[in-house]
Amino acid sequence: MPYVKIELTREGVSREQKQTLISGITNLITEVLDKDPKLTHIVIQEIELDDWGYAGEQVSVLREKGITANKQQ
Amino acid sequence: MPYVKIELTREGVSREQKQTLISGITNLITEVLDKDPKLTHIVIQEIELDDWGYAGEQVSVLREKGITANKQQ
Amino acid sequence: MPYVKIELTREGVSREQKQTLISGITNLITEVLDKDPKLTHIVIQEIELDDWGYAGEQVSVLREKGITANKQQ
Amino acid sequence: MPYVKIELTREGVSREQKQTLISGITNLITEVLDKDPKLTHIVIQEIELDDWGYAGEQVSVLREKGITANKQQ
Amino acid sequence: MPYVKIELTREGVSREQKQTLISGITNLITEVLDKDPKLTHIVIQEIELDDWGYAGEQVSVLREKGITANKQQ
Amino acid sequence: MPYVKIELTREGVSREQKQTLISGITNLITEVLDKDPKLTHIVIQEIELDDWGYAGEQVSVLREKGITANKQQ
Repeated sequence: MPYVKIELTREGVSREQKQTLISGITNLITEVLDKDPKLTHIVIQEIELDDWGYAGEQVSVLREKGITANKQQ
Repeated sequence: MPYVKIELTREGVSREQKQTLISGITNLITEVLDKDPKLTHIVIQEIELDDWGYAGEQVSVLREKGITANKQQ
Repeated sequence: MPYVKIELTREGVSREQKQTLISGITNLITEVLDKDPKLTHIVIQEIELDDWGYAGEQVSVLREKGITANKQQ
Repeated sequence: MPYVKIELTREGVSREQKQTLISGITNLITEVLDKDPKLTHIVIQEIELDDWGYAGEQVSVLREKGITANKQQ
Repeated sequence: MPYVKIELTREGVSREQKQTLISGITNLITEVLDKDPKLTHIVIQEIELDDWGYAGEQVSVLREKGITANKQQ
Repeated sequence: MPYVKIELTREGVSREQKQTLISGITNLITEVLDKDPKLTHIVIQEIELDDWGYAGEQVSVLREKGITANKQQ
């Protein structure tokens, strides 16, 4: 009986990216825990940049300063 | 001190249906647990169909295939 | 696709009371929203009294002062 | 590793008020728990008044009756 | 800025299985969304079987009846 | 109507520290948003170190490697 909630800043995640997350996490849980996928629910919630705080600052402010969350090369 | 969160796919739930859920659940908790209703908060969150995954697929895709969540007759 | 989370202070809720909450809320959602009960998951989480704050005070402190959450007669 | 979620009724909270909450809570956690602010994430979620139930009623209904959540003088 | 919460029934998930979930989901999010893994937090919460309701019944009752959540062969 | 959830790794947070967080956050919300503290609920949830993943690793593993979440001097 798994339930998964994913909270993300709203920064242009596409429908296809959401589907990839949903199928990938469901497959991982099915394999690792041997859970029936019909008992696995995944909810994605996108959060406005004014509504996410990191290190004491709104992400919208961090983005205005040019600070991103991208994977560093 | 109860707090209840209800997450639902966004599929046309009316204001009256929400009120029925809120009053029904508050009454149930008041009766079963003898809790003061003034200490009972209920939050409903509707989730877009692209953002809910079930059995590894977006609910929007399931609905396009004609698969509903309705009670089976 | 409903998911319901119930957070309660840990104050002696019995297995039977939990079952009554689970069946009552599932029935209410099934009736009001016409949802298949097999798509309805309900999670109960009991919270220690030191870990719940109300009006700026720990519930454990409120209980020591004789303040309860019981329905007022 | 703190994560904080704040759920509020959507009643005109400004960007500046959100920033004050984010910086104030991050500072408090940093001081009280000695946590690195770069490990502290805070998410604010505003809830429509039809979607928040208090004492068995939608907040939208309470507001129509003139009942507010303001601090009492 | 992703935060992921995984709720599971408490049925013997090992430390290694948890690590596999954490690394697998973090890698998936890093690849699909190009997010810095240092901004990705994942929280696993195991739920007692009396505290999870499915289709109106406690999972503990379903397990006593021999109904499992295992992937069907 | 604010509800706040604080998730923390379980690393020896004392009852007094929890009370300081609860009163501090309630006061902040009362001041910034002019909310009645009797409508403000705060829930603290401590998470085992095996159950929190950061940057793809369990916090228990990070701690074994000597990596802490303490504020850097």
